[in-house]
Parts: sequence; C-alpha cells; structure tokens
Amino acid sequence: MARPTPLSGFPELLPAERIAEQHVLDHLRATFELHGFASVETRAVEPMEQLLRKGEIDKEVYVLRRLQAEDSEGDARLGLHFDLTVPFARYVLEKAGHLDFPFRRYQIQKVWRGERPQEGRFREFTQADIDVVARDVLPFHFDVEIASVMAEALAGLPLPPVRLQLSNRKLLEGFYRGLGAEDPTAVMRVMDKLDKLDETGIRTLLAECGLDEQQAGLCLALAEVVTEDTAFVDRVRALGVTDPMLDEGLADLAEVVGSLTDLGLDGVTVTADLRIARGLDYYTGTVFETMLEGYESLGSICSGGRYEALASDGRNVFPGVGISLGVTRMVVPLVARGALTASRSVPSVVLVAVSDEASRPRSNAIARALRGRGIACEVAPSAAKFGKQIRHADRRGIPYVWFPAAADPTGDAGDEVKDIRSGEQVVADAATWTPPTADLRPQVVTKETAQ
Amino acid sequence: MARPTPLSGFPELLPAERIAEQHVLDHLRATFELHGFASVETRAVEPMEQLLRKGEIDKEVYVLRRLQAEDSEGDARLGLHFDLTVPFARYVLEKAGHLDFPFRRYQIQKVWRGERPQEGRFREFTQADIDVVARDVLPFHFDVEIASVMAEALAGLPLPPVRLQLSNRKLLEGFYRGLGAEDPTAVMRVMDKLDKLDETGIRTLLAECGLDEQQAGLCLALAEVVTEDTAFVDRVRALGVTDPMLDEGLADLAEVVGSLTDLGLDGVTVTADLRIARGLDYYTGTVFETMLEGYESLGSICSGGRYEALASDGRNVFPGVGISLGVTRMVVPLVARGALTASRSVPSVVLVAVSDEASRPRSNAIARALRGRGIACEVAPSAAKFGKQIRHADRRGIPYVWFPAAADPTGDAGDEVKDIRSGEQVVADAATWTPPTADLRPQVVTKETAQ
Repeated sequence: MARPTPLSGFPELLPAERIAEQHVLDHLRATFELHGFASVETRAVEPMEQLLRKGEIDKEVYVLRRLQAEDSEGDARLGLHFDLTVPFARYVLEKAGHLDFPFRRYQIQKVWRGERPQEGRFREFTQADIDVVARDVLPFHFDVEIASVMAEALAGLPLPPVRLQLSNRKLLEGFYRGLGAEDPTAVMRVMDKLDKLDETGIRTLLAECGLDEQQAGLCLALAEVVTEDTAFVDRVRALGVTDPMLDEGLADLAEVVGSLTDLGLDGVTVTADLRIARGLDYYTGTVFETMLEGYESLGSICSGGRYEALASDGRNVFPGVGISLGVTRMVVPLVARGALTASRSVPSVVLVAVSDEASRPRSNAIARALRGRGIACEVAPSAAKFGKQIRHADRRGIPYVWFPAAADPTGDAGDEVKDIRSGEQVVADAATWTPPTADLRPQVVTKETAQ
Repeated sequence: MARPTPLSGFPELLPAERIAEQHVLDHLRATFELHGFASVETRAVEPMEQLLRKGEIDKEVYVLRRLQAEDSEGDARLGLHFDLTVPFARYVLEKAGHLDFPFRRYQIQKVWRGERPQEGRFREFTQADIDVVARDVLPFHFDVEIASVMAEALAGLPLPPVRLQLSNRKLLEGFYRGLGAEDPTAVMRVMDKLDKLDETGIRTLLAECGLDEQQAGLCLALAEVVTEDTAFVDRVRALGVTDPMLDEGLADLAEVVGSLTDLGLDGVTVTADLRIARGLDYYTGTVFETMLEGYESLGSICSGGRYEALASDGRNVFPGVGISLGVTRMVVPLVARGALTASRSVPSVVLVAVSDEASRPRSNAIARALRGRGIACEVAPSAAKFGKQIRHADRRGIPYVWFPAAADPTGDAGDEVKDIRSGEQVVADAATWTPPTADLRPQVVTKETAQ
C-alpha cells in the first residue's frame, strides 16, 4: 500500500518523544498516588443521553455505530467521552455502594472531540484529572488540597514555568449582588467574555443586565484585580462593595492562595486573578486556570473548580472539587517545537555486541545478567563488524556497547564495555557493572524555544 | 438522574481491582523496557479502508461519525481499531523514515470490537503487544527473543500457571507438502478446525483437499504431537514424511522450544503443540498460543507469530514477529471470580489524623514530610473522634494511622503511629519513620478459585 499520511487532530509521537510523554505521565501518577488518590479508568463510551446533558458540547461528540449493526438490535446509542468529568460522575453514581467517601481519584485517559484541529486543539488527547467527591458535604479544605496537589505535580514537570490563576465564584457573585445586580449569574457570564469583547462591548451587555455606569465600572475594576498574594482582599474591599457571600468568597480564596504561596513551589507562580469566572454553570466556589508561560496562545492547560453537585441520584447529592490537566495540549506543542524530547529513542542503556552468530547465546547470557540487576539492554541484531554495531547503538542514543570476551582458551580475557560518547572502554563484569544513575533511564531533554 | 447501569462488554473496575490491573500493566511495561522495547501509542482510529483490509473482521468494527457532521465535509470515514497490529503496521509505514530498524516496540492500549459479549470476550479491552519489525530481512533469532520476553513477562505476573504452546507454519506446510498434498495451505486450514470438528468431519474435509486415508491419518497423527521439550522432532521424523521446508520448520521450532525451556521460568510450561496452526493467513513461521491453566474456557490469552510482510509500501517490505497479550481477557475474569485484587483500595500507607480543624496545617506538614520520603499518605477528611478516623483508614485498607502530638505547652509529647491491624502504637518522627517494605505499596492478593 502507499505510504499513509497523518490524520489532522490525532497526534502520534516518535519513540523518543513518547519517552518524554511517559516521563510526564509517570510523574503525574506518582504525585497523585503520593497524595493517596486512587486510579480509576472508565470505559471510552457513554450513552449519548449522558453525553448530551450539557447542551453546548453536543456538536463535538463522536457517535459510534457497529458496521454490521441491524436496526432491530436496539443497541443503546453510544458516543466517545469528550472529558473525564461526565464519565466519573456516572461512575460515582453507578458504584456509590462500593466506594468510600470522600473518594479521591485520579484518572489519566484519552478523550475525543470532533473540533476543528489547531495548535493545542486535538480530536484525540490525553487528560489527567484529580477530583475529590463526597456524599452530601465536602469540606472546603479539599479545595486547597486539590490546588496544592496539581501545583506540586506541575512543579515537577519538565515544562516552562506555569501561572496558576485562582478565582472564586462566590466572591464574584457576592460582589455583583452587593453592588445591586439583580441577576449576578448573568453579570458573571458577561464578565467571562472579557477576553473576546472590548470595554464598550462589556458595558453594553452589563447595561442590558440592568447595571448603571458606576456599577459597570465596579465590575470592570474587580476584573483588574490580579495579585500574587492575598493582597487582593484589600483591593476588593477598597472598591466599597459589601455582601456576606463576597466575604465568604474572599476568605476562601485567601486561604487557597495563601496555602499555595506557602508551598513555595519552583516554577509555579500563584495568582489571584478576578478576571477568571469560568463560564460553565456548575462551578460554585473556587475556580482554577493555568497558563504555560511563553505558550499563552494555547489557553489554559489545566482548569477546574468546586461544584456543589457533581452528580445526584435523587436521594444523595455528590459535591466535588477537581482539576483537569491537558497532557496532550501541553506536551505535543512542546514536542513539535523541539522544546521537549528524550536523550534516546529506546529504554536500553547497553547494546550487547555479538562477535559471531555462534556466540549469540553468550551475548544473551550477558544481557540476562544485566537485566537481572535492572539494567535495560538489547543484544545486537547481527554479528556485523563492531563499527556497525556501535553505529546501531549510536543511532538510538544507547550510551554503552558491551563486548563479550573473545573466545579465549586460556579464559583470562574479560568482557569490556565502551562508553561510545567518550570512547572510554573498560574491563567489566555483567554481574557487577553498573552505569551512572543518570544513564540508567532515558533523560528528558528540554530546550527553551522562541514562541 | 437515576442510578446508571453497566454496559455489557465494557468492563470497569473498582479501585482495589484497578490497583491489581495496574500491577499487571506495570510489570509488563517494566519487562518490555528491560529488553529494550520502546513504547509506541497509536491513535484509537484508523481510516475504514485500513481496518477492512482483512475481510473477516469487518462486522466487528465500530464506525465513528461526528454528531454534527455534514455530508459535504467529506471527512475520511474512521473506525476504532480492533487490534494493535493493523495500526502498528500503518505507523511503521508512515514513520519509516524516522525509525531505526530492526525496530522493537511495545504497545499497551485499548481496542474495541462490536462482538457479542461473553466471559473473556469484551467490546472494549486492553492488549499488550510486543513486535520486532525489520526492513527487508528479520533474522530468526528474534522469534526466540519475542517468545522469551513474553514468557518472562507472564512468569512474573500474579496469575495461575500458563502453558505457552508453540508451533511452526513451515513445519506444518512442509509436512503436508512432503506427504503429497497439492494445496498445503488448504490442509492447514482444515486442521485448524480440530477444535470444532470430530475426526470424521476432518477426514471428510481432508478428502476434499485430495488426501487419501493414509495421508489424512498422517495429518491427524501430526496434530497429536505435543511435547514439553524438543522430543517432538523425533516423533515427527518417525511419521516418515520428508521435505526441506519441514526440516527448516523442525529446526526453528526446536530452537525456540529449547531456548525457552532453558530459561526455566516458574509458572510457565513450554510445549511444542502441532495441533496449533492459527488460521490467520499472514503467519509464515513460528506461531504462539497461551492457555491459562484452570481457565482454558477463555481460549488463548496471548498469541502471535512470525509474518514475512507486516507491511509493504511497494518498495520495501517489513517482516516482523510479534505476540499480543489480552490483558483484560486475563484480568477481568480473575477479578470477577475473586481470584485477583489488592490489599487496599488507595495508594496511601498512612492516614494522618486531625485532632481539631485548627491543627489541620500540622497534620498537613506531617503528610508532606512523609511524602517527601516517598510514603503515600492522606490527611483525615474531618477532625472526627479518633475511632471514626481509624475506621476511615480501615475501610480503605490503609494500614497505619498517624496521631500528631497533642498541643502540649511543654513540647515533650511526640507523634505516634498505630498499626491498626495489630493495634501496636509507637512514638514516631515523620522525618525518619519508614513502614515495612511490604506495606509501602498496595499488595496484589491472589486466591485460587474453582473454575
């Protein structure tokens, strides 16, 4: 067949790039597990009526049909999930009798959306979500914890610095109510359009919400409050609006921002940013967004918040707080710009050379001894000239080539191992030789690139 | 919404069961990487014409359609992949210019088939594949290696013993040719039906292939050759058929069986089993199947073989040898029968208790100190009575509860940690305390169950 071509929106990585992605995924998993989050995987498909409960996303869903399905079969109509929140809410309801609440889970899976592909927007991509969900009541301290765990996860990644932007829906809603808005939610929806409209456009929409010029000015002033510490509290107070829900929102946001700042994580700037409302209706308290510095055009790579009703079965309501990291959205653009890859394309530290095909079992035995001590290796595919075997290792970035002792009747010739980067070659024993720790696994290589 | 119900054929695990599955997946990955296999992930979708190249499987494919797609868009028709071989062949052709051959890859991903669900047959399931693919020529020793790596991977899993059954298409084809069959491939297809037909049925079909009674008897005698070592060679020779391709097949199979037997892997019985032909036309040499002892009704959980043309772009041909392990097919029935689970439902080793909400930051600091030394933990969700906090740990299988020192003006009260299984409680310091290694991660729990 002819050489196939890539499908737009369905990114695939080369082996070294995949190693860099695996490094990211491994670090996320390790961080989430250190914090006691349990892994959940849900099936890739959900019934369409489940997927379409949020009306705005319906045009992006991929619907499935069995090629030979007959109408009479009455199969439930299924679609591919477009996020991990809808399936998790369904999982919680379905398995509630077998789960212990508050339930802390992480979920790292592919999701699919039929969007028009562009940089940072894919049709198939991996998300990494953490959520804590409770039955009936979820204490506020979990908002702090969710933000802290994700910030710690981001801080350990081979990424450009990130800016974690926090806001609070109670703060915004309380402020709008305090200044006299009759429909604070409508005002919040207008203010969420700040990225798309200019001030005149916003003021026009606010007037339609019944706000006068002074009230509109206060809304715009609130959206300008951005601080890297809890100073936002005084700046909001200085605007002179009062409301009990505003007080609650200010206290909550101050606690999240203060706790995160106290962690002092390298590469993570924490800001209170009152421009952020997040339009989705189900958030009710803390909301998060995250920008990758130098890659702001990608939009938020990591978002979430508090929702008072992740799910409900009529008798119980399940409040939650969660955050979702767009792994592909972050990794693929970095890979594409050459800012992220790995030091080699294979896990192998060592290529064991083969002197001649008759002695391949001897090379296999050396490889087995090395693997027994956790050293990844492979045996040369053919007993070519050693120069060719070394090139085989070099092309893959394998740092060491192992030369078995020549068949030596006196038995006093030893194996030797060569660092093909430096050319240094030493006598070695497969039962004891150990590479430097830095060589044991492929290293992730990062490079600053111009935007 | 009402409580949702599971979808038949789309298994989902509870957290402790998922930990057992992760253990299996981690072990597979670690083994494959020790042997130098690089990870590849391909997109979940392929163009339909790619998926339908093997006609027999077409009724099982799930076709995708975007909910709002318009006819005029002319999207390529896409379907979900039903195995990892077809996508890998496409990946190799597409990326050939960026890959180094022979190329060793492992691939662990979900696949989808619209089959009628039954035990061991799912509509969504995870496969773990390893393949080595070369450009033009792939030396035979890779057949030995692929079988060895998978056998080693299986030996380390928390599974019932497995029986790795090997055969060779050259051996079978050469034998049928040597006894005078005009169409050895047709004979092989008949003999592949041995599981479904009785001897009379097989003899009828062999007669239709032009074989007389004596020739048919030889075919049936060959299929009865099953040995746990290389004794099969003499037993085949004793049937008196000769052919150069038969010789080659005997030598190849003897080498694979002999090498695997030499590895002496616990829990893996290696057999030459000349009943096995594997119907798929593209195998050309070594073929593998694997039965889980006590679970033979599941069929082969791990199959593969040598194919001279995994892919071809008209100029180059890419021969390969590979094997595919049905992870879900193996894990889900074991989980369903209670034969496989984990010692706890969360990664946490320790629950850090909270004396009162005001001292939560102190409990958080203890947790941070433990995590800094790789000890997974979580902090109690509320400052309930300690008895309730202990029950919180117990329900999840968390073995230790950590009690922060009481607020003590003299400063001489220390933290204490309690093993809630034994009741033993000792003074401990979060900067130095370490749990026994066996407690550090959830343990996989296996139990023998009646079939």
